[in-house]
Formats: sequence, C-alpha cells, structure tokens
Amino acid sequence: MDKLRQQISFIVEIDKLKNIYRQSYLTDGSRHENDAEHSWHLAVMAFILAEYADEKVDLLKVIKMVLVHDLVEIDAGDTYCYDERAMRDKKEREEKCAKRLFSMLPDEQRNEMYELWEEFERMETPEARYAAALDRLQPVLLNYFSGGKSWKEHGIYVDQVLNRNGRIKDSSQKLWEFVESLLHDAVEKGYLKKS
Amino acid sequence: MDKLRQQISFIVEIDKLKNIYRQSYLTDGSRHENDAEHSWHLAVMAFILAEYADEKVDLLKVIKMVLVHDLVEIDAGDTYCYDERAMRDKKEREEKCAKRLFSMLPDEQRNEMYELWEEFERMETPEARYAAALDRLQPVLLNYFSGGKSWKEHGIYVDQVLNRNGRIKDSSQKLWEFVESLLHDAVEKGYLKKS
Repeated sequence: MDKLRQQISFIVEIDKLKNIYRQSYLTDGSRHENDAEHSWHLAVMAFILAEYADEKVDLLKVIKMVLVHDLVEIDAGDTYCYDERAMRDKKEREEKCAKRLFSMLPDEQRNEMYELWEEFERMETPEARYAAALDRLQPVLLNYFSGGKSWKEHGIYVDQVLNRNGRIKDSSQKLWEFVESLLHDAVEKGYLKKS
Repeated sequence: MDKLRQQISFIVEIDKLKNIYRQSYLTDGSRHENDAEHSWHLAVMAFILAEYADEKVDLLKVIKMVLVHDLVEIDAGDTYCYDERAMRDKKEREEKCAKRLFSMLPDEQRNEMYELWEEFERMETPEARYAAALDRLQPVLLNYFSGGKSWKEHGIYVDQVLNRNGRIKDSSQKLWEFVESLLHDAVEKGYLKKS
C-alpha cells in the first residue's frame, strides 16, 4: 500500500492547482480562469484539433503534457506572459516546485513527470510544439470571446500578441492563420491596441 | 476554415463546464469544485493510477472518456449522487444536452464524443469501468481530505458511500481496499455517520 499512498498524496497535493488563477477570464467574463480548468481545456482541444498539427504527434503524450505542464505553478504562481520582469526568474521558481512536487511520486513516475515538463518547456519535439500551440491558442480564444477583457485591462497591443503567439505556426499553419484573422478582428473591435 | 470554425465554436461552448459546480469541496474546503477541474483531476489520476486497473486498458481512451464525461452537465447541471429524486430524470436531461452539444462538431467527432459518453455511462468495458472507478475515488479523496465537509453537510452514512463506490472493485481490487480503509477511518473521525 506504500506506493499507492505516495501516489494518493501527490493526487491530493495537486488539488492546489485549482487555486492558481490566471490573467484570462472565462468567456462569460465572470471570473478569472484557474490552471486546472485551463489544463482540462487544453487536453480536450488536443484531441479535437489534432488534425491541424503539421507534424505527426503521439496524442497520448501531448495530452499528458498539457495536463501536467502547469503543476509547477502550485508553488511558483502564474507568471503573466506580458510581464517581462516576472518572466526573468520564472524558470528558477518553477524548477524548485518541480523538484518538490514530482519527488512525491515513486521514482519511475517522478522521472516521467519531469521529462514531460522539460520536453514541454523546450518546445523541441512535435508533441511539445503542438502542446505549446494549444497553450497559446486557448487564452486567445478566452480573450476574444470575453470581449478582450484581459487584453483591455492590461492595455495590450496586437503586436505583443502576434509575437507571443507566433510559435503556433511552428506546429500548425492552419491554426496560425485562424489566430491571425481573429487578432485582426480583435483590433477592429477595439479589444487590442493597434501598434 | 468552416470545419475549424465549427470545432472552435465547440471549444468555446464547453468553457461553460467551468461554471457547473459539484457538491464536493476542494481539499482546503474553500469552495465547491467545478466539473472542468474535476475532469482534469480524473485525467491525471488515470495515468498515475493505471497500474491498479485489474484489466488491461487503453489509457488514451480512458483519458478522453474522463475529459468529456461531464460535458452533458452543461445544460443538465450536476446531479448529486445521493439525491434519489434528481437521479430519476438525470439520463433524459443529459441525453438532450449530448444531442445539442455534440452536434456542434463535424460528423466524425460528434460520433466519437457520443460513443465515449455512452461507453462511460454503460460501464461495460474495462476502460469505462476504470473511468467509473476514478470518478468515484476522486470525490472520496476530496471529501476525506477536506475533513468530510460535504458528507457532514448532507448527513451521509458510510453505507451510502460504500454502496455508491462498490463499483470501484469492478475495476480495481487494490483501489477498493484503499477506499474501504479510508471510509473506515472517516467513520472513526466523525466525517461519516455509522449506519
């Protein structure tokens, strides 16, 4: 039972991800989204949009990756992608949390978690590129369909969003074209500032 | 772009799952859990606990199943498993939502969603039995580790929880033994009423 108890402790510990709030609002604008909901949304998107990944991907690996990619924010907190100062020590804060958290698991699973997280962060495999594309597309959707609520609050320029999300085209030409047209429309509607 | 726009509409629509609240509290007792968070938690559990499924399971299928199993609650709402009256027309309410929601997708994906949901509901395959076991284990964990908060509010007896969760042993003897010992302890601690 010892191994199972270790795994259960991890499962109970990661409940905390539900209290890590992001800058994005839900599409109804009622409140900020949290990391657990965001990770769930990405996992569903991973299989609905799989046909648009330009490289062949192992879908199970992508889904595992998006399910665990934000766990390190349990201690490190969410770092707003347009906050340059906070982005500087992000890696260090997250590395520390990964060590603590993944060490709760039996060795083999600790290693798998670590590898999934590092692969996601490095964006060097087709799976990591597709996961990164989804991780960028999802907040664009929430922002656009909540009337640009978070973009407007932070006075974001369309060029910032185009730069940040350019990575999408490393995985999918089609999703990138879609995002470009959505962002063009977001400027027209006044959700984003024209650069 | 038409097919992609259909898929994006579905992805935006299911954002509503984040506003469907369950009876379970987060382990810190601060608020009720919602369906999107619950589905995320099950998906992570699916791969952490896979070794305890007594039958061989297709893990990708299990994960897809738990990610979408509660989508029908977007219109039907969450039905508390110990509310006998509400349980009666649950199926009908959920069937209606499944039709509306899954029809937003292109044909092939509409069918896949429908099949995943029906397979989950029927509990006749190893994947569905394992998914059902996780769906029962997770609220037991939240309840136990929040000091029995939801059980106490509803005055739940240990026999009700044992009956409801007996299904766990159809998938995993080990997880069932773990749950039995946890529930025994929950009675000792006064989280559940002794029958």
